Amino acid sequence: MPATTAAEQVRTELLRLIAERSPGDRLPSSRQLVERLRISPLTLSTALSRLAAEGLVITQPGSGTFVARTAHSPAPPLDADWQTVVLGEGSVDLDVRDRLRGGPSAGRFALDGGYLHDALRPNGLLAGALGRAARRPEAWGRAPAAGVRPLRELAAADSGADVQAEDVIVTSGGQNALSLILRSVGTPGDAVVVESPTYPGALAAIRAAGLRPIPVPLDEQGMRVDVIDEILARSGARIVYCQPNHHNPTGITMSAQRRAALLAALDGRGVFVIEDDFARFLGHDPEPRTSLLSDDRTGCVIQVTSLTKPAAPSLRIGAIVARGPVMSRLQAARYVDDFFVSVPLQESAVELLASPGWQRHRKALAKALAERRSAAVRQLATVRPEWTVTPPRGGLHLWARLAEGERSAQVVEAALSREVSIADGDRFFPAEPGGAFVRIAIAATPDVATLEEGVRRLASR
Amino acid sequence: MPATTAAEQVRTELLRLIAERSPGDRLPSSRQLVERLRISPLTLSTALSRLAAEGLVITQPGSGTFVARTAHSPAPPLDADWQTVVLGEGSVDLDVRDRLRGGPSAGRFALDGGYLHDALRPNGLLAGALGRAARRPEAWGRAPAAGVRPLRELAAADSGADVQAEDVIVTSGGQNALSLILRSVGTPGDAVVVESPTYPGALAAIRAAGLRPIPVPLDEQGMRVDVIDEILARSGARIVYCQPNHHNPTGITMSAQRRAALLAALDGRGVFVIEDDFARFLGHDPEPRTSLLSDDRTGCVIQVTSLTKPAAPSLRIGAIVARGPVMSRLQAARYVDDFFVSVPLQESAVELLASPGWQRHRKALAKALAERRSAAVRQLATVRPEWTVTPPRGGLHLWARLAEGERSAQVVEAALSREVSIADGDRFFPAEPGGAFVRIAIAATPDVATLEEGVRRLASR
Repeated sequence: MPATTAAEQVRTELLRLIAERSPGDRLPSSRQLVERLRISPLTLSTALSRLAAEGLVITQPGSGTFVARTAHSPAPPLDADWQTVVLGEGSVDLDVRDRLRGGPSAGRFALDGGYLHDALRPNGLLAGALGRAARRPEAWGRAPAAGVRPLRELAAADSGADVQAEDVIVTSGGQNALSLILRSVGTPGDAVVVESPTYPGALAAIRAAGLRPIPVPLDEQGMRVDVIDEILARSGARIVYCQPNHHNPTGITMSAQRRAALLAALDGRGVFVIEDDFARFLGHDPEPRTSLLSDDRTGCVIQVTSLTKPAAPSLRIGAIVARGPVMSRLQAARYVDDFFVSVPLQESAVELLASPGWQRHRKALAKALAERRSAAVRQLATVRPEWTVTPPRGGLHLWARLAEGERSAQVVEAALSREVSIADGDRFFPAEPGGAFVRIAIAATPDVATLEEGVRRLASR
Repeated sequence: MPATTAAEQVRTELLRLIAERSPGDRLPSSRQLVERLRISPLTLSTALSRLAAEGLVITQPGSGTFVARTAHSPAPPLDADWQTVVLGEGSVDLDVRDRLRGGPSAGRFALDGGYLHDALRPNGLLAGALGRAARRPEAWGRAPAAGVRPLRELAAADSGADVQAEDVIVTSGGQNALSLILRSVGTPGDAVVVESPTYPGALAAIRAAGLRPIPVPLDEQGMRVDVIDEILARSGARIVYCQPNHHNPTGITMSAQRRAALLAALDGRGVFVIEDDFARFLGHDPEPRTSLLSDDRTGCVIQVTSLTKPAAPSLRIGAIVARGPVMSRLQAARYVDDFFVSVPLQESAVELLASPGWQRHRKALAKALAERRSAAVRQLATVRPEWTVTPPRGGLHLWARLAEGERSAQVVEAALSREVSIADGDRFFPAEPGGAFVRIAIAATPDVATLEEGVRRLASR
C-alpha cells in the first residue's frame, strides 16, 4: 500500500522537523515543505492536520505553522491511584517473593535457597537433551494438556504406586502443581491443614487461592495425626497438605505407622491429601522409597513431584499423580491456565529420566548431599554447640533450633554482616512464629569448603 | 546397607515363587528354601512373617506355607466415588479442552486451530536459539519472577507505548497471562464484559476464575461502545476483555474513534481493560501498529501479547504490560503460581526477537497469510457464494456467516465427513449461540493448495 507508506514518510519527516525546534518556533512554509519533501500540497495539509489534531503543531492561517507547547513536554504522569481503591485488599501477599526468597541473599556464602548450586546440576545432560529436542521440528508444536505420553509413563512408573500414565499431569514444576491443585480442589474460604512448620511456597499458594492454612504440629515421626480428628472437625478442612519424605524445613520423614494412621483418620471424611514429594530424588542414603500414594485405596492422595529440585531450577517440569474424578478437574484447570508445557522442555525431561546419566547423577548427588550434610552438621556442632540439629537423611537443608533466648532475626542479620545468608525459621510457620529456628542450605554453595566456611561464620562471635 | 539388600533379595525370590504358584499351593519347605536361597533360617522366617502379615502367604505350623487366596487377586478397585460429592459443581468446565479445540480435528484438511502450521514457523531460528541457550550453564538457574531483563526490555520497546521494562511481566504464553490477570484482578462472582463473539480461551479463563462473562455486540468498527455505559452500570463489571486488533474470530479491528470512545467511557469508572493483542505480529498488510495501551493515561489498560502465535506453540512465552499498583499484584500472583518461566525458553525468545531473521520471518509470514487469506476467500466465494465473509487484514482465520437456514453444527459435521475440520462458530459466543457462523483457519495447512482443496470441500454438495 504505497499511499500509506508515503504518508508515513511525510509524517516522520515532519516529526523530525518538530523535534529539531523549540515550542513556539515556526516550521518552514508550506511551499518550502512541498518542495523539500517532494509531495503534493494536499498530502502536506493532510499530514499537518493530523499533527494539529494530535496537539503537536498549531496552524495560524496567514502566519504559518508553529511547534506546539505540548510537542516537547513529556506525557503527563500516569494517574493510576484509582487502582488501589478498585483492587482492594486481595488475597495475594505482595511481599511474598521477598519472603519466599528469604530476603537479600547477596552474601558470598549462600546457605539459603531451595535449589541445587550450579555445580551440583547435570548441566551437560540437560544441554544435550534440550539441544536435541530443539532440533526436532515437531517439538515446537502443541502437546496434550496433561503432557507428552512418554513423560507421563515415566512419571507413573517412577511413582512407586499402582498408577498409569493416565493418572499423571505434567506441570511447570512443583509450585505450579500446588497452585493448580489448591485452586481446583479448594473453595475460597476453606481451611487447609498444614504441618507447622511447613514450606512457605505452599502457604503462599494456599493464601493466594483464598484458602486458610490450619497448622498441625510435627514430632520426630512427622505430622501429629493424633490431633487430626479434632482439627478436621473444628476447621471443616477438606485438604491436608504435607511433605511425608524429608520434610522442608525440618528434614523429618513420616513414619510408616504415622502414614497408616493418617490415611485411616481421613478414610470416609471426604478429605484430599496433597503429598508434596519434592524430595523424591533428594535422599542422602539408599533407602526404599515410600509414599502415601502407594498406600492409598480411596484416591484421596494427590501426589506432587518436581525435577526443578534434583535437576535444575529451569527444568520447570513437575508432575501431579491423582486418581478418580478429581483428575478431570485438574486437567481442565491445567488447560485453562496454560494450555500445555513447552514440548522441548518435556522431551528434555524424558531424555534425562531415561538416560543412564540420570542414575549416575542421582548417585553422585546423594553422595554429595550426604557429604555436605555431615560436614555442615560437624562444623555447626563446633561453632554452635548450643544449637540443636537432627541430621536429616534427605533434602537440601539443616533445621537448627537456636539456644534459649536467641532470636532468629538477629542471628540471620549477624550472619548477613559476615556475608552469609541463611533463612529465618519464622518464614516456615503458618502462625505464631517463635523466632527459635534457622534453616541452613547445604546444596547452595559451589563446594563443601565454601559450605564449611559459611557455617564457621555462624559462630556467635 | 547390605542387610536390607539381602532381605530384599530373599523377598524378591519368595515373591517369584508365589507368582509361579496358584492360591492354595504349598511353597517349598523351610529347609529347602534355606538351602536354595543360601540364607539363615532366621532370615527366612523374618521374610515369611512379613509376607504372611501382608496376606500373601498363610503359614500353617506343621504343614508348611501356602500361597494365600489374596496373593493373586488384583488390588481392590479404587473407591473414589466420594470425590464427586466433595468436589461439587466447581467453576471449571470439564469439557473445556474439547470445546476449545473444536472437537476431533482428524481431517487431512485442518482448517481449524489457532496456531501456525509447522511449515510457517521459524523452526531453524528457534532450534538454533534454544540450542545455544541450553548450552549456557547459567541458563539452567533461576530467573526473576517477572522475567529476564532483556526480554522485558524488548517487550516494552515493542509495545509501541511509553512503557519501561519494569512494566512488563513475562508469562508462559498468552493464555497463562489471561488466566493470571483474571484471577488477580477479578473477585469471584464479578462480571467481565466481553465482545460477542470472542475468544473461547478467554471465556474459559473467565469462568475458571469464578467470573461471569457479559457480552457486548460488535459491529464493523469493533465493540459497540455506545452500549458500554449501560452494561457497566447494570453488571457492575470492573473488567473489560477485548481484542482490538484483528479480533478472533471476526477479524475486525477496532476503529480509532471507537478506541478513543472506549477509553473515554471507562475514565473514572474504576474499570480495567484487558487488551489481548494476540495478533500483534499477525497483520497481513504493512499497517501502522495501534494499541489501546498507547492511548491509556490512567493505567486502566493491561496488555497481553504472545509469541506462541507468530512463532510456535511450544515457544510458550507471553507478556503482560501493566502500569500502576496492579503490577505488584500481578507479579506476586505470577510468582506464587509458577515462580518463573524457564530461562532457556526466555533466552530463546530474546535471541529470536533481536535477530534479523525475525524481521524476515515476520515479512514472509505476512505475505504468506495475505496469500492464504486471498486464496481462501476466492475459493469460498466460488463454492459458497451464499456465505458472507469480510476478508480480514490480519489474524489466522476467516469468519463466515452461513446462508439463511443453514446450521453451523451440520456444516461442521458435513465438512468432517469430507476430512475437513473447521470450527463451529457457536463456540465463540458467550451466550445464545445462533448456529450461523463457522471459523476457517488459513494458517493450519502445510500450503496454499491444501487450504484451497480444504475450502473446495466445503461446497454444499
